[in-house]
Amino acid sequence: MEKEISKERAAFLAKDYSQGFIKYCRFEADDIQRGYFQSKVTIENHHRQQDGFVHAGVMATMADHTAGYAAFTTVGEEIQILTVEFKVNFLKPAYGEALVCKSKVIREGNRIIVSESEVFDMREGKETLAAKAMVTLMAVCRDKLASK
Amino acid sequence: MEKEISKERAAFLAKDYSQGFIKYCRFEADDIQRGYFQSKVTIENHHRQQDGFVHAGVMATMADHTAGYAAFTTVGEEIQILTVEFKVNFLKPAYGEALVCKSKVIREGNRIIVSESEVFDMREGKETLAAKAMVTLMAVCRDKLASK
Amino acid sequence: MEKEISKERAAFLAKDYSQGFIKYCRFEADDIQRGYFQSKVTIENHHRQQDGFVHAGVMATMADHTAGYAAFTTVGEEIQILTVEFKVNFLKPAYGEALVCKSKVIREGNRIIVSESEVFDMREGKETLAAKAMVTLMAVCRDKLASK
Amino acid sequence: MEKEISKERAAFLAKDYSQGFIKYCRFEADDIQRGYFQSKVTIENHHRQQDGFVHAGVMATMADHTAGYAAFTTVGEEIQILTVEFKVNFLKPAYGEALVCKSKVIREGNRIIVSESEVFDMREGKETLAAKAMVTLMAVCRDKLASK
Repeated sequence: MEKEISKERAAFLAKDYSQGFIKYCRFEADDIQRGYFQSKVTIENHHRQQDGFVHAGVMATMADHTAGYAAFTTVGEEIQILTVEFKVNFLKPAYGEALVCKSKVIREGNRIIVSESEVFDMREGKETLAAKAMVTLMAVCRDKLASK
Repeated sequence: MEKEISKERAAFLAKDYSQGFIKYCRFEADDIQRGYFQSKVTIENHHRQQDGFVHAGVMATMADHTAGYAAFTTVGEEIQILTVEFKVNFLKPAYGEALVCKSKVIREGNRIIVSESEVFDMREGKETLAAKAMVTLMAVCRDKLASK
Repeated sequence: MEKEISKERAAFLAKDYSQGFIKYCRFEADDIQRGYFQSKVTIENHHRQQDGFVHAGVMATMADHTAGYAAFTTVGEEIQILTVEFKVNFLKPAYGEALVCKSKVIREGNRIIVSESEVFDMREGKETLAAKAMVTLMAVCRDKLASK
Repeated sequence: MEKEISKERAAFLAKDYSQGFIKYCRFEADDIQRGYFQSKVTIENHHRQQDGFVHAGVMATMADHTAGYAAFTTVGEEIQILTVEFKVNFLKPAYGEALVCKSKVIREGNRIIVSESEVFDMREGKETLAAKAMVTLMAVCRDKLASK
């Protein structure tokens, strides 16, 4: 993981990150390095569940998507990343004003990539680890994906 | 799992199901039995990811939330259900007009409950298994939850 | 999954199943069909943990290994199967005289295969579901594996 | 996690660690601190699988058991620890002379405890991360366990 990621690639990934469901959820890219992707979201009422806490699905989605973009920072532009599976533990309820998700690649690969995501609840200026996920991803050439 | 669930309880859970993030995602209760909960969603553009498929986070959220409500059908009204963790495998890309999630309790308990969720992609009148999750839940008395 | 598995292939896999750590654990193949593999073990003291129950690691190992052999029944002889990851829930303590593990492929593939394993505790002639696992496997050509 | 663990408690847990299946697998306690447990095993032929690599089940068992003992360092002597579930990713094949497992508690609790385990393959004096697990554990009073 010694190589850098170019500014152009980082800018592309930052923009690419927020589309469709992710844009609907208001998640945004925050910090991008090679093997690392950080995202954030300001919590609104539509992120909560019946008890007022942030919904587990919000944290799971953020953990998955950010893990995938961490993987994107380690592969070429011709590669698409798919989530094979993930597992997430909810460690503390989140009820703060924002979430920050920090994802790093713990296993690079041509086919299988594994990332870890930590979702922090931001409250009163402090970070509390609210959820942690391990995400298995698959690297696929874009032209193969199309014919799948 | 021989006991029935009352019509009143089923109606309450059906309504309770769609709040906050789940309402924002447009998921709705579909069929409720003791130890079983089924939900559905009509796919719109805001459910998709960058390649046009339904986002993994949509399926994960549906799998988690519906699993929790399957657990609700096995406990008393004084009990709240929290997700401890879940794991989800994405088996086939989903690109149909709707998703249906079928969750069943595979381990009842006073403290730990385990549910399984299968998310089906509905296309051209056929169901395709798109994702499968195993969800660990915790039963907590509502009054204890408040003081946590 | 309509094709049959040949008797020769089934006999080969049954023998191939019990080597190294698996032989040391005394697990044996029990029933083999296309997309399905069943194994068994008679419980001895060296399978238990500090409280007298069967150790979680015994059930996890059985769930993983048998899932992999279920995958073997769906691929050609030139293919090797590797475990990418697995997740296992322990549903009930196991303290009976034997375990039976039933694994089935829930997603076939050229690269990624997903199997599910159910480990049953055999006590007084009855099966109790003790553990359930979801296992992600990778199919690799034997010649590529060697050069990895 | 500011408190220390007493020498007596550490010595008790070190001995308690290696019983039944774990003793049969030859795993031994190596380093114990509050919230942290490290174990090791010298690899022998009976730890391997059909291709000569260390069996995934060996690493999974070590990851699970050591995670449980990390949890033991954070609770009182009247508490028993049970594994609710775990998930493990196999990152690199292990083929060295020994394994070292490092487990740390990432979420303490009266009921649910979460530990993370990293299994390192020791080869030519270097550590390679071979597997990583997230383990959900339950703390139960010993007297309640007996009546379960």
